[in-house]
Amino acid sequence: MGDSNEKKGAASELEQFDSIFAELVDDVINCPAVKGTDTTAAMKWFREVAEYNVPFGKKNRGISVATSFKELKKDCTEGELKRARILGWCVEWLQAFFLVADDIMDASITRRGQPCWYKKDGVGLTGINDSFFLESAVFQILRKHLKDQPYYLSVVELFHDTIMQTVVGQCLDMTTAPPEGTIDFTKFTMETYSAIVKWKTAFYSFYLPVALAMHMAGISDEASHSAAKTILLQMGHFFQVQDDYLDCYGAPEVIGKIGTDIQDNKCGWLVVQALKLATPHQLKVLQDNYGQHDAEKVERVKKLYKEMDISRVYADYEESSYQELMSLINSSCGTLPPAVFTAFAQKIYKRQK
Amino acid sequence: MGDSNEKKGAASELEQFDSIFAELVDDVINCPAVKGTDTTAAMKWFREVAEYNVPFGKKNRGISVATSFKELKKDCTEGELKRARILGWCVEWLQAFFLVADDIMDASITRRGQPCWYKKDGVGLTGINDSFFLESAVFQILRKHLKDQPYYLSVVELFHDTIMQTVVGQCLDMTTAPPEGTIDFTKFTMETYSAIVKWKTAFYSFYLPVALAMHMAGISDEASHSAAKTILLQMGHFFQVQDDYLDCYGAPEVIGKIGTDIQDNKCGWLVVQALKLATPHQLKVLQDNYGQHDAEKVERVKKLYKEMDISRVYADYEESSYQELMSLINSSCGTLPPAVFTAFAQKIYKRQK
Repeated sequence: MGDSNEKKGAASELEQFDSIFAELVDDVINCPAVKGTDTTAAMKWFREVAEYNVPFGKKNRGISVATSFKELKKDCTEGELKRARILGWCVEWLQAFFLVADDIMDASITRRGQPCWYKKDGVGLTGINDSFFLESAVFQILRKHLKDQPYYLSVVELFHDTIMQTVVGQCLDMTTAPPEGTIDFTKFTMETYSAIVKWKTAFYSFYLPVALAMHMAGISDEASHSAAKTILLQMGHFFQVQDDYLDCYGAPEVIGKIGTDIQDNKCGWLVVQALKLATPHQLKVLQDNYGQHDAEKVERVKKLYKEMDISRVYADYEESSYQELMSLINSSCGTLPPAVFTAFAQKIYKRQK
Repeated sequence: MGDSNEKKGAASELEQFDSIFAELVDDVINCPAVKGTDTTAAMKWFREVAEYNVPFGKKNRGISVATSFKELKKDCTEGELKRARILGWCVEWLQAFFLVADDIMDASITRRGQPCWYKKDGVGLTGINDSFFLESAVFQILRKHLKDQPYYLSVVELFHDTIMQTVVGQCLDMTTAPPEGTIDFTKFTMETYSAIVKWKTAFYSFYLPVALAMHMAGISDEASHSAAKTILLQMGHFFQVQDDYLDCYGAPEVIGKIGTDIQDNKCGWLVVQALKLATPHQLKVLQDNYGQHDAEKVERVKKLYKEMDISRVYADYEESSYQELMSLINSSCGTLPPAVFTAFAQKIYKRQK
C-alpha cells in the first residue's frame, strides 16, 4: 500500500515535472542576451539540441529537488514547488551538458536508447558547442525564474562549484584511462576509483539536488550542508558501483545504452575488484584483454569476471553498503529530516536501470 | 612623442597585467570547491592547461579592462586597478576556453605560434574537458576576488550572457560552414557574415572588457551600456574583417597561426566579397576549389583573390570603416569619455597580428 501510494506520488511528481519543460525551452530560446533576427538559425538548432538531449533520462536527479524540498518544507506553496521543479530541470540541463560532451570524449555510440547526439548527421564535433549551450541555459533559466529569490546567488555559485567538481572528476577519469593499447593497472585502485566517483558523479547527482532544496528552504549553514554532503557522497559512491555493474551486466534494452567500460579501459568497480582478487594467471588475462576495442577481448574479460564470481562480490557489497548508508543517515543527518535521504536511497537501490 | 609615451604606458600596463597571472593560477588550483588530497593529479593537469593556454595571446582584451577603467575613473586606486586586471584575466581565461574548444571543432593545427592544446601528446579530446576547466576558472576567480564588490553579481551575469552570445556565434559559424565537400554559397552573404562576427567575436572581445570596466566604475545603466555596445560591436566587426584578411594574407610567423578559413569552408569576409564581385567563370573557380583540404585548391582560391584584387577592396574598406567608426564614437558615446573607445580602436587598426 505505502509502496503503491509512493509510486503514484512519484509518477505524479514526474508528470508535474515534465509539464514545465516546454516552457523552459522557450525561455532559453528567447533569452534576452541573444535576442535578434540574426540568431534565428542558431536558436532553431539549439531547440533541437535541448529537446533531443535534456528530457529523456530517468530524471531522478531533477525530480529529487522537489521531493527533497517537500520533505524540508511540509507546508510549501505551489509557487515554491514550481521553483523547485525549475531547479530540478537545471540539474537535468547540467547533466545533459556533461553527457553530450562525455559521449564525444568517450566515443560512445548510444545514450538513453538513442544515438548519442554527436553521432547524428550534421552534428559531430559541433556537439562540443552544443554542450556549452546546454550549460549556458542553466544560468539563463536561473536568472529568468529565480533572480528575485534570496537564495539566487547561492544557487548560482553552487552550480559553478558543481561544474568545477564534475570537470575535476572527468579529468581524473580520463587521465586514469590511458589511450587504447596502453595498459597500466597501477592506478586502478579503490582510492582512485573513489576519487573519480566522488568528483565526477556524486556531487552533481546526489549533493546538488538536495543542496538546492536546502537553499530554497532557507538552510544554507555550513554544518547542515556538510552533513548532507557526507551522506549524499556516500550514496553517490554506491550508485556508481551499481552503474558500473549494470554497464557490464545490465541489458542494453533496459539500461538504454551499450556499456563500453571494458573497451574504454575504465577504472570501474568491477575491474578494481577483479584486480584485488586475481591470481597471477587471471591478472595476465586482464592485461591481455582489458581496454581494447575488440569484441572477443571484451568477452574474455566478461568470462573472467564470471569465473571470479564478481557478481557475487557485488551482491554482498550492495547489501552491506545499504546497511552502512542507513546507519550514516541516522548518525549524521543532524537537524535535517532523515526522510530526505532515505527516500532518495530507496529510489536507487535495486534499480534495474 | 605622444605615441611613444602611449607605447611605454601600454608596455608597463602589460607588465603589471602579466605580474598577477601566477597568483590567479594558484587561486584556481586551490579553489575551495575542489580541495582535497584526491584531486592532486587533476589540479596538476589543470595547472598545465592554464599555463599553456591562457597567457600567450596578445592580451589586448585583457589589458583593455584596466586601460578602459583608467579612462572612466581618473583617480582610481591601486586596489581598483588590481581588480580591473583580475577582470582582464577573466576575459583571457574565457577566451582560452573558447579557443581550446574551437581548435578541436575546426581541426586547427597551431595557435599563437605553438601546437593547439588538443594536438599535444596525451590530450586529444580530453581537451574538451580542459576547456570546461578554463571556463569554470573564471567564476572561481570572480568569487575569490570580487565577491564583496557591489558589482559582483552584474559581472557574473555579464560573463554568463557573453558565453551564451559566443556560443550562439559559434553555432552560426559552424552551421554556415557545411562539411568538407558540400559547397553551398547561398548562405555566404554579408548578413550571415555580420551575424557570425557580432555573436562569435565582438561581444566577448570588444563589449565585454569595456562593460566590465563600466560596472567597476559604477556605470550600470541600460542607456550607457547600449551606447557602448553599439560602438564596440561595430569595432568588433572591423576587427574580424581584419582577422579574416590576415588569415589569408598574414605571415604565419607574425600572426602565430596558419590560416585555414579557405579549406574550412568558412563564411569569411574575403569570400563574401569575392562572391559579390565574381563573374560566372570566377564563381565556378570558387565552387570547384573552396572548402577542401587540398593545398592546390587553396592556392587556386588565393590566386583568384589576387586576380580580383580583393586586397584593394580590403584596403578601401579599412580606410572608410575607420572614418565611420570615429563618427559613431562622437555621435553615440553619450556621457562616456570618447577616449575609452578611441584608445581601443587605435590599438587594433593597422595591426600586423
